[in-house]
Amino acid sequence: MTTTISLLTDFGPGSVYVGEMHAVLRRLAPDAGIVDLAHDIPVGGVEAAAYVLGRSWRHGPEGTVHVVVVDPGVGTSRAILAARAGGHLFVGPDNGVLADVVGDGEVRRVENRARMAETISSTFHGRDIMAPVAAGLATGGPLEEVGPPVRPCSTPSRLSRGSGGITGCILMADRYGNLITNVGRSLVEELGGSDGAVSVRIGSESIQGLVTTFGDVAPGRLLAYVGSGDHLEIGVNGGSAADRLCLGPDAAIRVEGSSR
Amino acid sequence: MTTTISLLTDFGPGSVYVGEMHAVLRRLAPDAGIVDLAHDIPVGGVEAAAYVLGRSWRHGPEGTVHVVVVDPGVGTSRAILAARAGGHLFVGPDNGVLADVVGDGEVRRVENRARMAETISSTFHGRDIMAPVAAGLATGGPLEEVGPPVRPCSTPSRLSRGSGGITGCILMADRYGNLITNVGRSLVEELGGSDGAVSVRIGSESIQGLVTTFGDVAPGRLLAYVGSGDHLEIGVNGGSAADRLCLGPDAAIRVEGSSR
Amino acid sequence: MTTTISLLTDFGPGSVYVGEMHAVLRRLAPDAGIVDLAHDIPVGGVEAAAYVLGRSWRHGPEGTVHVVVVDPGVGTSRAILAARAGGHLFVGPDNGVLADVVGDGEVRRVENRARMAETISSTFHGRDIMAPVAAGLATGGPLEEVGPPVRPCSTPSRLSRGSGGITGCILMADRYGNLITNVGRSLVEELGGSDGAVSVRIGSESIQGLVTTFGDVAPGRLLAYVGSGDHLEIGVNGGSAADRLCLGPDAAIRVEGSSR
Repeated sequence: MTTTISLLTDFGPGSVYVGEMHAVLRRLAPDAGIVDLAHDIPVGGVEAAAYVLGRSWRHGPEGTVHVVVVDPGVGTSRAILAARAGGHLFVGPDNGVLADVVGDGEVRRVENRARMAETISSTFHGRDIMAPVAAGLATGGPLEEVGPPVRPCSTPSRLSRGSGGITGCILMADRYGNLITNVGRSLVEELGGSDGAVSVRIGSESIQGLVTTFGDVAPGRLLAYVGSGDHLEIGVNGGSAADRLCLGPDAAIRVEGSSR
Repeated sequence: MTTTISLLTDFGPGSVYVGEMHAVLRRLAPDAGIVDLAHDIPVGGVEAAAYVLGRSWRHGPEGTVHVVVVDPGVGTSRAILAARAGGHLFVGPDNGVLADVVGDGEVRRVENRARMAETISSTFHGRDIMAPVAAGLATGGPLEEVGPPVRPCSTPSRLSRGSGGITGCILMADRYGNLITNVGRSLVEELGGSDGAVSVRIGSESIQGLVTTFGDVAPGRLLAYVGSGDHLEIGVNGGSAADRLCLGPDAAIRVEGSSR
Repeated sequence: MTTTISLLTDFGPGSVYVGEMHAVLRRLAPDAGIVDLAHDIPVGGVEAAAYVLGRSWRHGPEGTVHVVVVDPGVGTSRAILAARAGGHLFVGPDNGVLADVVGDGEVRRVENRARMAETISSTFHGRDIMAPVAAGLATGGPLEEVGPPVRPCSTPSRLSRGSGGITGCILMADRYGNLITNVGRSLVEELGGSDGAVSVRIGSESIQGLVTTFGDVAPGRLLAYVGSGDHLEIGVNGGSAADRLCLGPDAAIRVEGSSR
């Protein structure tokens, strides 16, 4: 078994930016297997990318090198990080996208010019810095040689807790129109217990109690459930919650314990 | 040469659902090669997915394990199947998506808990059941151990034959705006012979006779032809039939022999 | 390290057309690694595909077999080419998409029936001719056996040079809404020097001077820069130039030296 490199970006599926990263990795780490974790992150969606990385990284083989390129600050002075945590390796911009996963690990600032491409563009560090650094790690290059230890910026969060509950937001919609929130399972259980006794308000709608899966409500009905990424999601059985509510990323959501 | 695993879903290209299935497969069947057959099936489009599987499965290497996740009933009591037919293996929900291909083969109901992930979510059996089962088959796990033999549900079909011809529907549109119908080549030839003497009605348009390729009609003209998947398709030379006709999946189509 | 095969198409990511090419390649060249260079080329966009091939082919390993299927003339009498240039191999329709890259190389017209699939459809030569030919080259089949030498059609270009500057057009927009033009870096430097002293007119807007990256202008402002593919691009810092200008592929752009 060879090393795995995973890619997580907001480049869009099928784009030349994804393609050129694959080409560079195939040239520099020809034996690695590449997994495209996701390329449909909302543009510049650092919090959404952190959510996806958080839910996905453990599903791959130990030792995977995860490259995350959601990088609205490309070309500015923001740092690039390489890190080891939980038996996996991580490369990405220092904008918070890695912090939740690598917080307790070894985090370094990428500075070693020899680990980058010969020519470095101003607008595509994924191809010219992060892919070569990842290929270096995947082929046995030592993490400590990429640069000095650093403390990463924290992941941005739009969660706020008040006396009566939690206010969060939609991170992204999937192709079914399910709305994925930034409210994790543990917060939901804190408010409503493991039987999901919460009330959820989103747009002009209010949903009482969580269910387990789509078939638990009648066709066409809204439902709230903890999804496959362990976050609260809003869906419609046989339909699209995004279309029904006319809502997408950044829309607010409110969760309260039902007993109130 | 190593085993091939193919994926066919309605998850959307670049989505984390595709990515997590790849990650799981790479962990459990690290030497397998993965082919993404398609991820743009219309949401919940069981008949469309059956069409795509039917046209595509033979193109890959013998012994490929095909995983089909178009699964609107996820989390309900619908069964999951694993099957062997035509020298290939198949895993998918028992909603008809596999039936046309595995009908004459060995079909089993997936019940063996040891072949699934440790934790099983309620909304993503592709990742938690089907991918591990496929990885097991790809690495030599015996089919007969997944569960007992079962007779699969049949593929849903919206074809109806009357005295004057066939009424069918559009299964999906491709990126060019070609409209792919559920009417196969053999039915077309039955009505019009191998020279394609049929008349096709779709929306408010009527097309006389089949042609072979786009260049057979003037730029901007509608054409009917048997496409690369051996089904009747409607296109526009240098344009989009979907845009021209304002039609997409589920729209009705009528095919009659021209002699009538 | 095994041979690499790259795919560049306008099929759309996640489509069955991409999937079937992967399946065929996996069957005929099981040890090759496949890189999806891009699948989101504008439909029929030969000039855009030539741009993407031109920027990308060198990023992969030497000896890569590049298959380009942007082929609006499929099924007509247009030829299919196979070529060697710069230590890489290329397969694609003879509509100009390969010419810029293979111009000085060995170019042959694909005629050897034995190198194609048994059955050849009229609308999908990517699967039935180009993928088998590429697999043959990737597994050591001699280039000279595909067919006789030929001179390729030239790449279509919508650039025109007048006394006062250059008139070009938008080739494609990326997911961020950046507009990628057909004006290369060398032309820009000819007009404005390496410090980018040019003025750019697009739609009703005029941009003075080039910058290096997005952060060089205030959030929400238009910028002109030479992008990661060495072509002039128009963007908005933190926004979408395509949305701001309501422009996309084929829109005109005018570049003049600032001193005028």
